[in-house]
Amino acid sequence: MDWDREARTGLPEAVFCAGKTPAQIDAIFASAVAGGHRLLMTRLDAGRHAALAGETRATLDYDALSATAIHGGVAPARPGRIAIVTGGLADLPAATEALRTLAFCGIDAELVADVGVAGLWRLLERIEEIREADVVIAVAGMEGAIFSVLAGLVAAPIIALPVSVGTGVSAGGRLALESALGSCAPGLVAVNIDNGFGAAQAAIRMLGRTAAGV
Amino acid sequence: MDWDREARTGLPEAVFCAGKTPAQIDAIFASAVAGGHRLLMTRLDAGRHAALAGETRATLDYDALSATAIHGGVAPARPGRIAIVTGGLADLPAATEALRTLAFCGIDAELVADVGVAGLWRLLERIEEIREADVVIAVAGMEGAIFSVLAGLVAAPIIALPVSVGTGVSAGGRLALESALGSCAPGLVAVNIDNGFGAAQAAIRMLGRTAAGV
Amino acid sequence: MDWDREARTGLPEAVFCAGKTPAQIDAIFASAVAGGHRLLMTRLDAGRHAALAGETRATLDYDALSATAIHGGVAPARPGRIAIVTGGLADLPAATEALRTLAFCGIDAELVADVGVAGLWRLLERIEEIREADVVIAVAGMEGAIFSVLAGLVAAPIIALPVSVGTGVSAGGRLALESALGSCAPGLVAVNIDNGFGAAQAAIRMLGRTAAGV
Amino acid sequence: MDWDREARTGLPEAVFCAGKTPAQIDAIFASAVAGGHRLLMTRLDAGRHAALAGETRATLDYDALSATAIHGGVAPARPGRIAIVTGGLADLPAATEALRTLAFCGIDAELVADVGVAGLWRLLERIEEIREADVVIAVAGMEGAIFSVLAGLVAAPIIALPVSVGTGVSAGGRLALESALGSCAPGLVAVNIDNGFGAAQAAIRMLGRTAAGV
Amino acid sequence: MDWDREARTGLPEAVFCAGKTPAQIDAIFASAVAGGHRLLMTRLDAGRHAALAGETRATLDYDALSATAIHGGVAPARPGRIAIVTGGLADLPAATEALRTLAFCGIDAELVADVGVAGLWRLLERIEEIREADVVIAVAGMEGAIFSVLAGLVAAPIIALPVSVGTGVSAGGRLALESALGSCAPGLVAVNIDNGFGAAQAAIRMLGRTAAGV
Amino acid sequence: MDWDREARTGLPEAVFCAGKTPAQIDAIFASAVAGGHRLLMTRLDAGRHAALAGETRATLDYDALSATAIHGGVAPARPGRIAIVTGGLADLPAATEALRTLAFCGIDAELVADVGVAGLWRLLERIEEIREADVVIAVAGMEGAIFSVLAGLVAAPIIALPVSVGTGVSAGGRLALESALGSCAPGLVAVNIDNGFGAAQAAIRMLGRTAAGV
Amino acid sequence: MDWDREARTGLPEAVFCAGKTPAQIDAIFASAVAGGHRLLMTRLDAGRHAALAGETRATLDYDALSATAIHGGVAPARPGRIAIVTGGLADLPAATEALRTLAFCGIDAELVADVGVAGLWRLLERIEEIREADVVIAVAGMEGAIFSVLAGLVAAPIIALPVSVGTGVSAGGRLALESALGSCAPGLVAVNIDNGFGAAQAAIRMLGRTAAGV
Amino acid sequence: MDWDREARTGLPEAVFCAGKTPAQIDAIFASAVAGGHRLLMTRLDAGRHAALAGETRATLDYDALSATAIHGGVAPARPGRIAIVTGGLADLPAATEALRTLAFCGIDAELVADVGVAGLWRLLERIEEIREADVVIAVAGMEGAIFSVLAGLVAAPIIALPVSVGTGVSAGGRLALESALGSCAPGLVAVNIDNGFGAAQAAIRMLGRTAAGV
Repeated sequence: MDWDREARTGLPEAVFCAGKTPAQIDAIFASAVAGGHRLLMTRLDAGRHAALAGETRATLDYDALSATAIHGGVAPARPGRIAIVTGGLADLPAATEALRTLAFCGIDAELVADVGVAGLWRLLERIEEIREADVVIAVAGMEGAIFSVLAGLVAAPIIALPVSVGTGVSAGGRLALESALGSCAPGLVAVNIDNGFGAAQAAIRMLGRTAAGV
Repeated sequence: MDWDREARTGLPEAVFCAGKTPAQIDAIFASAVAGGHRLLMTRLDAGRHAALAGETRATLDYDALSATAIHGGVAPARPGRIAIVTGGLADLPAATEALRTLAFCGIDAELVADVGVAGLWRLLERIEEIREADVVIAVAGMEGAIFSVLAGLVAAPIIALPVSVGTGVSAGGRLALESALGSCAPGLVAVNIDNGFGAAQAAIRMLGRTAAGV
Repeated sequence: MDWDREARTGLPEAVFCAGKTPAQIDAIFASAVAGGHRLLMTRLDAGRHAALAGETRATLDYDALSATAIHGGVAPARPGRIAIVTGGLADLPAATEALRTLAFCGIDAELVADVGVAGLWRLLERIEEIREADVVIAVAGMEGAIFSVLAGLVAAPIIALPVSVGTGVSAGGRLALESALGSCAPGLVAVNIDNGFGAAQAAIRMLGRTAAGV
Repeated sequence: MDWDREARTGLPEAVFCAGKTPAQIDAIFASAVAGGHRLLMTRLDAGRHAALAGETRATLDYDALSATAIHGGVAPARPGRIAIVTGGLADLPAATEALRTLAFCGIDAELVADVGVAGLWRLLERIEEIREADVVIAVAGMEGAIFSVLAGLVAAPIIALPVSVGTGVSAGGRLALESALGSCAPGLVAVNIDNGFGAAQAAIRMLGRTAAGV
Repeated sequence: MDWDREARTGLPEAVFCAGKTPAQIDAIFASAVAGGHRLLMTRLDAGRHAALAGETRATLDYDALSATAIHGGVAPARPGRIAIVTGGLADLPAATEALRTLAFCGIDAELVADVGVAGLWRLLERIEEIREADVVIAVAGMEGAIFSVLAGLVAAPIIALPVSVGTGVSAGGRLALESALGSCAPGLVAVNIDNGFGAAQAAIRMLGRTAAGV
Repeated sequence: MDWDREARTGLPEAVFCAGKTPAQIDAIFASAVAGGHRLLMTRLDAGRHAALAGETRATLDYDALSATAIHGGVAPARPGRIAIVTGGLADLPAATEALRTLAFCGIDAELVADVGVAGLWRLLERIEEIREADVVIAVAGMEGAIFSVLAGLVAAPIIALPVSVGTGVSAGGRLALESALGSCAPGLVAVNIDNGFGAAQAAIRMLGRTAAGV
Repeated sequence: MDWDREARTGLPEAVFCAGKTPAQIDAIFASAVAGGHRLLMTRLDAGRHAALAGETRATLDYDALSATAIHGGVAPARPGRIAIVTGGLADLPAATEALRTLAFCGIDAELVADVGVAGLWRLLERIEEIREADVVIAVAGMEGAIFSVLAGLVAAPIIALPVSVGTGVSAGGRLALESALGSCAPGLVAVNIDNGFGAAQAAIRMLGRTAAGV
Repeated sequence: MDWDREARTGLPEAVFCAGKTPAQIDAIFASAVAGGHRLLMTRLDAGRHAALAGETRATLDYDALSATAIHGGVAPARPGRIAIVTGGLADLPAATEALRTLAFCGIDAELVADVGVAGLWRLLERIEEIREADVVIAVAGMEGAIFSVLAGLVAAPIIALPVSVGTGVSAGGRLALESALGSCAPGLVAVNIDNGFGAAQAAIRMLGRTAAGV
């Protein structure tokens, strides 16, 4: 683990648990405890979580929806307002991964859920609330039309977080990703599919400039 | 040429000129004249048009923007209101190919241009006008977000006509096509990229049910 | 849920169950019951259906083949004749999803099954029957040749519904989808792969013009 | 050049001219003349043909449509009937490349042109004629639906020759190729896109079994 | 089922069992028995086979390697020699599907196994044996280099049967398929990935010309 | 044109000239002049620039490398330091498009050129300079390895601007784009291939939070 | 099995166990024992290993991480120093497959683990150690940036071994593979995704020139 | 330019001229002359070469086939034997780029041309000659079958250099590249498509171990 990354880049180290065995995760956890480090785990699905050692599980704050776990509590509150905007239920896992990552870093984010463009007024009703954010994380699968609509309505940085929600031509999230990149609206940026952690890290980089820490 | 198609399916025969030599086009034209048939030519770019025989060119109503030519005039007016909705200047060639095909078949269509979602109010200002159409043809390249927005606002059939306008991940029109197919809004249908002729033919099939002719 | 969509677009709200937990589906169901709404559920596979709460299951009209469930009965009969044309057994799940969606909306559709082009006379024997429909939904996987054959024989709107039936180069349904979009026959439109619900919604948009409701 | 291939495999050597300079082609030609070999050239477009040395051009039987040239005349007639079936004008270059390759090898082939499935009766009117062939070469671009229709109607070997004729999703010929490979009709085989020479060679392999020569 | 196909095209009807329920397969079987038809089943994996009704299983000649089952015995022997050439163990399922389909139709085929080009002499040692066949079915996954090597050594028709054996860039069989289509050696034809049934059907079409039956 | 966008989103309207005729560009220019608006033109290649009307060209500040033109001068200086980091000569067109877009908006950017990772010390020598920026725009084609290296060394927001520089597997820019999105280093964001304008707009959104204006 | 390959090419025969049944593996093992051959098995996952016959398992040196098994011990030590460089835990299975293959052939390799470029100094701290190797095998998934960084720092041959570690656009290993092939740094070579065995074989080819044996 | 690269990695700096203007190339040339450096230019097509300044052209050793130019002569001869094996005329540009790069570095390579596998004996006749090389560079387009055949016959390192020679499914070189990577024969390595320079650089890395210099 790169325990010094936080000092160097302002972004804490985290454990990507997909593909790791419970034993490997337990070992990393023990090393964090030994070093007195807080720790964020991502992609820790329920089955893998259940297979961790009892002492590991005992101190973890685990959230099944986002498949994340936090050890050592969240950081002291930092300034910065983030809005996480989603179209529907299926976007919540990635949105919550972003939310929990931000919380771990001491940043409060507001979830503006269920505002997909198929019912446009739902988004328009909440647009002023979204405009108050310093950074917007927009979460969408399928055709990702919300990215373009938001980019035309909001002046803040917008991070498109495409998710692997869809069927047929939209399965896997690539369509949503490319809709963000190929948008007719200016100034959108994107992260990888389902990468809620990365979207949060990018948001922290953007907030970091004004915050004292980095 | 399949001169009986119109009687059989209600859709007139047309000549797809891309890939044909001027001599081949002249021969088809002569055959149409000899048989007393009206004729629509598509994908007849300016260079190929200029290379046609003088007698062919003399009687053709040619439009360079849409690369279409009409011989024998348009059909008598048929009932049916079509709205053709576009985001910007670059969508006009395909939109006009659809418009000219409909005119050739006696159907009047209204062009609602420059209403891309990056400036959402432009579309919202004209939405009542669009709602009055029997069929909507929506034309877009890039990420095609307008397809989803329209489908949430309009009850009529919406034919998505994706166009090969875009750069990088949106070059070639496939992103716009897949955005229509993978949309979160229900009941959209799509035709092939840049296929203004096909979109018009599909619209005629839809109108045909209520119109007397077919 | 967007309970007002039906009033706005003529298309009822439905629950896409794939990716939702039984608890989420139960909650949506309870909300529908509380609001007095009818409800259509799609992509509700047998395992997920079995895991729903007893009170949810008790009132649902469930069909395993199409993985759909209906609560609150079907709508009063609306005018309009739909033909759903399929090539073989494997097309039935998507075809039946379309059929059940139409039934939910009060529209009777006729299934013309097992008329694949490998035995062309099977289709030709039933072509007059198909020609009587207001809208044709053609369902095919593999190479989707039936879309082009139908489009040359029928004047009504034809909605190509490609399905993920095939192996090797035709696995996943994209070949059938692109065969519809790239057809040599004019005026075909397509919906996403396996999207029987979307095909039905598109058909309703087309019928809606003549029907009183929308 | 592999001048002994004909003795070894029954298939004559040929020069694929695309990507070769006129000087390289002239040199190969001179080598053939010096060795007393007949020669078939393919993909020799008009510009490259015009740039060949005068003495090369003087003895070549050149055909611009198929971009082929023959030196030394055609072979003595061999038994075997081939039908080459095409949908339209755009398929003729590849169809004629196959036709000329067969003629070079002494095999007469019949061209059954303009029988695309968008007007199905055109194909049905000529099906008996096609059934008399020992081998059928079917040529199609776009969605290639004719491959499947033929395979259900004809018992002889059918070689699908997909061509790069199409737009949008069907551009480049891959859709037609995959429609042949993924067909619902049994026993189709395919060659590479635009490979009229290869289709002819495959047909000769099939004829060769009954013919004396190989 | 299209029980008349054999009379029409010389190729018997078969049941593709993947995606069908045991109940559907049992019903088709019963219909074959009632009609006095022989029957070939393909893609009938061991699990699905075990789930068939006892009376169905009792009369089936089942082969687990190829996942095929035959009811009603094989046809009387027809003339024609087929060689099925494979590179290794992993090619045997598709090779055996072809072998069993040919046997069902009364055609004896010889399996020339384990002659992959990584040990070239293995193929060269058996090349004379292969040259005696009327038709060669070559089976290969990975990079499919054997297709090109064979096509340079054998004059008979060669049907490339690519299989989904490989890892990384060769996973899924598309690389082998394209190696056959894009070969530098002339006159190769290909069928779909893993389509042993189709390769056998194509071989029967080729044999059919000399055999009396078709 | 959407002349109010700047007031609404802080980002000025610009004209994307690729695909527009000189006459269309002249007309937009005249409209800008008539309305008293400043104007930025992108993708205005030298040929198209030369074909503009004399009066248009007379007042344009044109830069051939980036294919951009500015009318009406640059905006008053705004706070904010941007570093634009590139690997080599081939990255300069997109980098300069970003630079000129920023200049048009009153923002000074520093170009850190020729620091590709194949000679790692070149980047390490200038890393402190890069760390002083508020936002970093990293420009790279080929395999885009510099994105990951930078993201591990710098805490500021990093906008990856992939460019269509490369050959074989890296042609077209998609490899560089995906290297940014799939990076092992946290918090990178990306814009579309060659989209220097978009990268600049995204940077302005990020600066805007601290600057007074938006 | 090609037991003579080692004599012919210096590379021993190995058994690729994925897709083989335990019975097939047992039979190959028995044949090796009968012939007195040493044997390397790859892609032998834990489940398949457990299903082997007891006598097979008894003599195998099995390693679950790399899914390899060795029968008959390792070869006598050969000269040559190999460095295997990896970014993280997830690269270890493929790295260890290479390591065990080299050990089987008598070659000692050093593992330089956990030096991914997101923390660049980790790699720089160990670069001198890497420079002492005769051949470097670099193992990486995701965006594979380490390949380019190494190639600029080391003069020895570098074999890029991309692994299927990643999510979204980097899932499956193709991005890492193409990053190696499309690198801006000169003289990198690549093997197939996850092909630790092949990377080791390539390294042995390179060592072989100086070693006496081959 | 990175003039110190040769000292650092044993590989000289070179100028990739595609995409650079003649003025940029002239400037780099002048800088090389001023510094007393030898220089290799690649991808310098005839048109660009003709547009260079007279003084640049005067001292360049230019080769049109490979589009390379050398300034300052070749290096003193270094030990090492390289065989460059090709299938046909179309492979010569890339093969010669490799040859000239090696010559620039003082390494003599032998060209074994026209030994494609469609006429296998051509390769077998020269295999002993190829076996004497320290490193083999194999050059092939289309389906690249020669890579696998060579890897089964030769023990030396084999660098597969795929080239963009082919049509239809083999156009662009990706099929040949993947055939090398997915080969059934062990220990092949590959470089990017058409990358003769890179193949030579990789060969130098491999030779470098035994040569004194690096």
